[in-house]
Amino acid sequence: MVWVEGVGAPAAALDRGLEFGDGLFETIAVAGARPRLLGRHLARLRAGAARLGLAVPSEPALTEELGRAAATPGAAVVKLILTRGAGGTGYGADPALATRRYVAALPARARAGDPARDGIAVATLATRLAEQPALAGLKHLNRLEQVLGRRELAGHPGAAEGLMLDVHGRLVCGTMTNVYLVIQGRLVTPSLVRAGVEGVMRAELLAGWASTGQPCEVRDVAPVELAAASEVFVSNALIGVWPVVAVDGRALAAGPVARAAQARVAAL
Amino acid sequence: MVWVEGVGAPAAALDRGLEFGDGLFETIAVAGARPRLLGRHLARLRAGAARLGLAVPSEPALTEELGRAAATPGAAVVKLILTRGAGGTGYGADPALATRRYVAALPARARAGDPARDGIAVATLATRLAEQPALAGLKHLNRLEQVLGRRELAGHPGAAEGLMLDVHGRLVCGTMTNVYLVIQGRLVTPSLVRAGVEGVMRAELLAGWASTGQPCEVRDVAPVELAAASEVFVSNALIGVWPVVAVDGRALAAGPVARAAQARVAAL
Repeated sequence: MVWVEGVGAPAAALDRGLEFGDGLFETIAVAGARPRLLGRHLARLRAGAARLGLAVPSEPALTEELGRAAATPGAAVVKLILTRGAGGTGYGADPALATRRYVAALPARARAGDPARDGIAVATLATRLAEQPALAGLKHLNRLEQVLGRRELAGHPGAAEGLMLDVHGRLVCGTMTNVYLVIQGRLVTPSLVRAGVEGVMRAELLAGWASTGQPCEVRDVAPVELAAASEVFVSNALIGVWPVVAVDGRALAAGPVARAAQARVAAL
Repeated sequence: MVWVEGVGAPAAALDRGLEFGDGLFETIAVAGARPRLLGRHLARLRAGAARLGLAVPSEPALTEELGRAAATPGAAVVKLILTRGAGGTGYGADPALATRRYVAALPARARAGDPARDGIAVATLATRLAEQPALAGLKHLNRLEQVLGRRELAGHPGAAEGLMLDVHGRLVCGTMTNVYLVIQGRLVTPSLVRAGVEGVMRAELLAGWASTGQPCEVRDVAPVELAAASEVFVSNALIGVWPVVAVDGRALAAGPVARAAQARVAAL
């Protein structure tokens, strides 16, 4: 047991992030001892804070803290958690609460093999994503669906990522990645207006494709379209881009669009 | 900033409850220096833990800890949070993680007036609940919808509770309560198979009504049925039962079913 608070205890240790998932997070890759794509991470954090009504921390302070964490020897990932603060136990928050932030410098995650080079197998999961437009796109702290998806994925030992559909059966994303398909030469990624997280790497890739004259269509995607795809790949801020070489047992090759995206990530 | 973890730091302070809302909670009323309805709280916790794949803590240990918290002078509420544990940063949890529990003894919440006696006004909120059968019913830590609902309720200054509909427009619950309607003499409460929390007080009330020959129908409820109701009331483990005396401005009287339920709660 962790005794967090007795009546009359001086400090309220119950954080609304722990109590209700009332907050946001960013998981930031470290490259050259600096946070990679920091501007995009901070932009997403600001946008999420505005949607949840969280006070936005001072950007210079955040930049300094995240930079300091990234400079920690051995740091490969910096994790930032922003919560509405600590105090009280009800869903309604005292507007006077001060947000709290947690910063952790973390080592690289051990991974089997070289998924960026060799690609990964993915499995379509039975665990569905609820549709909640009020929260869609945000990297908020309510992530039980992803936890359940990841638990289900453990039953697919060959698959490194699970694809998740929404309750209406549309393809949305991986448990920890965004997903892209190349269909008859056209690049497509699922719309995230009802579910899913707007990945920072996704934003970077979309901007890059738009600027190079090969825009990526953002629209509803049916899982059956996976069968028609010549390429499938996934992205997030930490892994960059991983080609998908098997979808539910159907073999695919790592293709030129994924490889070009990887080259772009390597140049960040 | 709270610096939670540096590379090589001895203890992983990132708790999956904070990171992902990966856990459950119980908010328990204290009556006579003891946790009220403890058996029902522990049963719900066990059922939730089974659905999320969390190890169930030892019941004697929990009972001892919660009893000790309830005996704290001035304690009116005991809050228990159970998380999947601390360690790692990915959605997938190491199966070897040990669950963590947090117990807090809290004073009574200050409330305006005497809502149990005088009833409350409620407002139907625009914030909708997503449908997620995998999580429906559980008192899990992913509660941003309730936080958003509560924020919206602040724009209805006369209302003490907000009624929430699911994305298909069915009435589900209040932000912090279950809801009941008496329609042509029949008692009805919304089904919680797609959204909402199965309240401990709701379970107690349903069992009581079943045993006294006035069963409560559990079914989908359309918000328009509120207009046909002769009584509306809400419940949770802390407040017991509050009659609703206004729904979106339409006046209602506190009725005999709510008063009988309050008498039952007083006898617990």
